[in-house]
Amino acid sequence: MRKILLIGIGPGDPDYLTVQAINALNRADVFFIPDKGAEKAELRQLREQICKRFITNADYRTVTIDIPKRDAHPEDYQATVDDWHARIAERYQSVLTESLPDGGCGAFLVWGDPSLYDSTMRILDRLQAQGSDIAYEIIPGITAVQALTARHRIPLNRIGQSVTITTGRKLGAAGQLTDDTIVVLLDGDETFAKIDARDVSIYWGANLGMDDEILVAGKLDEVASEIQRVRREARSAKGWIMDAYLLRSDGNE
Amino acid sequence: MRKILLIGIGPGDPDYLTVQAINALNRADVFFIPDKGAEKAELRQLREQICKRFITNADYRTVTIDIPKRDAHPEDYQATVDDWHARIAERYQSVLTESLPDGGCGAFLVWGDPSLYDSTMRILDRLQAQGSDIAYEIIPGITAVQALTARHRIPLNRIGQSVTITTGRKLGAAGQLTDDTIVVLLDGDETFAKIDARDVSIYWGANLGMDDEILVAGKLDEVASEIQRVRREARSAKGWIMDAYLLRSDGNE
Repeated sequence: MRKILLIGIGPGDPDYLTVQAINALNRADVFFIPDKGAEKAELRQLREQICKRFITNADYRTVTIDIPKRDAHPEDYQATVDDWHARIAERYQSVLTESLPDGGCGAFLVWGDPSLYDSTMRILDRLQAQGSDIAYEIIPGITAVQALTARHRIPLNRIGQSVTITTGRKLGAAGQLTDDTIVVLLDGDETFAKIDARDVSIYWGANLGMDDEILVAGKLDEVASEIQRVRREARSAKGWIMDAYLLRSDGNE
Repeated sequence: MRKILLIGIGPGDPDYLTVQAINALNRADVFFIPDKGAEKAELRQLREQICKRFITNADYRTVTIDIPKRDAHPEDYQATVDDWHARIAERYQSVLTESLPDGGCGAFLVWGDPSLYDSTMRILDRLQAQGSDIAYEIIPGITAVQALTARHRIPLNRIGQSVTITTGRKLGAAGQLTDDTIVVLLDGDETFAKIDARDVSIYWGANLGMDDEILVAGKLDEVASEIQRVRREARSAKGWIMDAYLLRSDGNE
């Protein structure tokens, strides 16, 4: 058997790592770095910084896995992702068996938490279903959701109310809030500026917990364009941005 | 000014603490322990264990705050909670000013994450609104949601789909799934056994990440009574239980 650890490393600040994640880093002999071509130099450095800071065994190796590209705006989202995952699984299978001896332990560092909008677990499930001799373990990490509410110092839920976590794509399709509180991840299209903004507050944050963190909060119709401005500025300065936001219908707390 | 740290300590296993949380533990001179009368000996021991293991400064003090009881099944939930919070805020105000010198730093250890179904932040917001000289900081923690998905090794969301986090009360009122994936916290009433269970899978867990962890997963209509049985057994053995579950409508992944 080959053991794979999916280690949640939080949304950026290395101090978000848990004791369990640090122990897991020290159990792995090989770190697999999926390279989508999109991960910019600074993000790669951040991963390396985390390894250097927390791993006491200096013998670890890193192995890059080239990830095939997928259509960013496909007609059939589900089918496109499915096909893309199948191609990634093939790549994983060959790299994992080449780089990891039987009985060896490898790891993936996953931004945020491995269970939330990350596909690594699904890929490994595919390999297992295909009979691959891979066992895996999940080490949870702080998500952008928690970093966002912590940095804005707001509760995630209203008292006794529910919370929906969703994507920019889903919010855009709904066109409005579908719950009292909605947290939106993976929104490269600034969907917050395109929905019904009446009686909605937004708490937006980028690069949460990092030196160049940006926070903007206010009535959505009043601050949407400001968020667009600072978001584009920050994105063009670095070539990428990690952001998230919470939308809450205005009303009594 | 008095500084208060709200430190998320995760759902039980001390290894879920983050580096940031450990640093925060070491910044505080006083730890406030809200005593609802409900926190049993084992939970108190777990908090003490966390302090002992991670705090290097041995000079810290702990101060208990007696929390008034609230009606468990009130007619007007919102108003009852509001009144209850007002009474807690009074208690906090007097204890914080008595126990913490001007310029001092105190901390609350919060199970899970301080932003999710915890009222400490709201109480401090009340005190600030009343002109109290309190500043606070949030240190996020691993939630039961993440521990649950990690231990069951399941993604939180279906591909491209949203997730709703809710309470037993809200689920009971809906009587059925209101989203593709629903995570239910704070369900002392075993609501999972009372809703429309057709084509729903459940992933249930108690004492997540701890030695006496219990996990049950399956079709809701097939395992609901088993979950009720093990849940009641575990609860009566200790006098309390910390559990959570994820409900997912069956269908293609």
